[in-house]
Amino acid sequence: MTEHQEKKKFTKHASPDADGSTRPELLYDRNVARPSHAEDARTLTEKMEVATLCTISEKSEGHPYGSFVTYAMHEGSPIFLLSQLAEHTKNLNTNSKASLLIAETGSGNPLALSRVTLVGECLEVSKEERDSVKNSFLETHESASVYADWEDFAFFKLDVQSVRYIGGFGRMSWVNQSKWSSAEPDPLFDNSDDIVTHMNEDHADALLLYCKTMSKATDASDAVMTHIDRYGFEMMATVDSEKKPIRLAFESDVTDSDEARIELVRMVKKARKMLSD
Amino acid sequence: MTEHQEKKKFTKHASPDADGSTRPELLYDRNVARPSHAEDARTLTEKMEVATLCTISEKSEGHPYGSFVTYAMHEGSPIFLLSQLAEHTKNLNTNSKASLLIAETGSGNPLALSRVTLVGECLEVSKEERDSVKNSFLETHESASVYADWEDFAFFKLDVQSVRYIGGFGRMSWVNQSKWSSAEPDPLFDNSDDIVTHMNEDHADALLLYCKTMSKATDASDAVMTHIDRYGFEMMATVDSEKKPIRLAFESDVTDSDEARIELVRMVKKARKMLSD
Repeated sequence: MTEHQEKKKFTKHASPDADGSTRPELLYDRNVARPSHAEDARTLTEKMEVATLCTISEKSEGHPYGSFVTYAMHEGSPIFLLSQLAEHTKNLNTNSKASLLIAETGSGNPLALSRVTLVGECLEVSKEERDSVKNSFLETHESASVYADWEDFAFFKLDVQSVRYIGGFGRMSWVNQSKWSSAEPDPLFDNSDDIVTHMNEDHADALLLYCKTMSKATDASDAVMTHIDRYGFEMMATVDSEKKPIRLAFESDVTDSDEARIELVRMVKKARKMLSD
Repeated sequence: MTEHQEKKKFTKHASPDADGSTRPELLYDRNVARPSHAEDARTLTEKMEVATLCTISEKSEGHPYGSFVTYAMHEGSPIFLLSQLAEHTKNLNTNSKASLLIAETGSGNPLALSRVTLVGECLEVSKEERDSVKNSFLETHESASVYADWEDFAFFKLDVQSVRYIGGFGRMSWVNQSKWSSAEPDPLFDNSDDIVTHMNEDHADALLLYCKTMSKATDASDAVMTHIDRYGFEMMATVDSEKKPIRLAFESDVTDSDEARIELVRMVKKARKMLSD
């Protein structure tokens, strides 16, 4: 769905925009710090392990050919352990043009989930690079150690040239190579689900307090954390029986779960002080 | 993994084959009736709702471009509701060559799951066909009714020309158009999980009886049903602490759950008679 269509969905509580169109009324600062598309794309590639490799079919006269692959990340590039007998390998040996589609899995509307297409050249890795690529691959796919050294298998690497990121409805862009190369995956990505569960189970009162003091959802009756990253976190607040998204930023970026906890505690103290003042 | 490698995995209990290679010793008839690759592929496409559409990139000079799509099946062809603003739509409007990779989801080794690549031409559907395509699409994706008639959306159909099916390790082939067109999805696909659960929870004794009387697993100590289809069913039997796959065929193909139940009951009676004779 495009940004335009997304706007149409939010006719309720919408305020006219400068260009005459409507946008949902946000209950938090629109300019709050959040990960860039390059960073979100890097985080997604780090989180997943299976994807679709697209190659140019040798057999079907230039048709694009999609195949299922397992992958790992190695210094910002997707790497693969491919059988020489597989269709995609025959295709790559004829034409190295490729792309990799990595899609988040989850429940709910699948079009609301994020996905990224990495476009570039996919070639067998050089002898010099093989050992370090193999180590990275087996770190993610341990069971592949059985056949990693068989002579009909080879490691390939996708040299990413451009990136299309879609973070759900109305959140999409092309990311260029330099932004992609310099982006780091979110340091919390491995722990974010645990932090979100812990906050919702044990600190629901703190979440409500954040909303009441640090957003425009001052009348919120309930708040559920939905996401956390290095720059801040997101909640779904209930205001007048309606669900409203809230995003708040940390005072400074966090680099691990401990720092995230310290920031969340600091913000509760600040919120309590704001209430008592 | 190729068939060759799969063979290497089963060195235990392997018997020399005519060609000198080794195969696992099967405890059931190797020629038991089972779905064809075309039928398994059709069943998989009917079961899933999301896939990767591969097109030829207009922007990235002939690179194959993978994107996430929702799809439905319409008279054996995958159909899509695409935004004119999306990359894949721009690509298809320039070059209709496409493929669709549909991958089963599940736990365990992802390379053991089945997937299929449908290769062909993907074009906007004609005015005459639009209504029936729209009905099929909304039957699977009800929420798309909100934007199905918006002018910047259009229905596309992939006219399948060839099919690559991979049913897990060592079970793969190209399926030609005529076999694909005439294959029917398995009539049990929607109920098979429920039947398998019911048999394992309530009829474990019957499963063990099938193994002891109708397969070479006469010493089985335990049997768990793993799969059922129109032609028969599969179990994992425990024999001398080892897991052994067993597949048994129905006397005649079944067309729904009721017929499957009747066949399973008939086979229990037959097995009891074999034991008592």
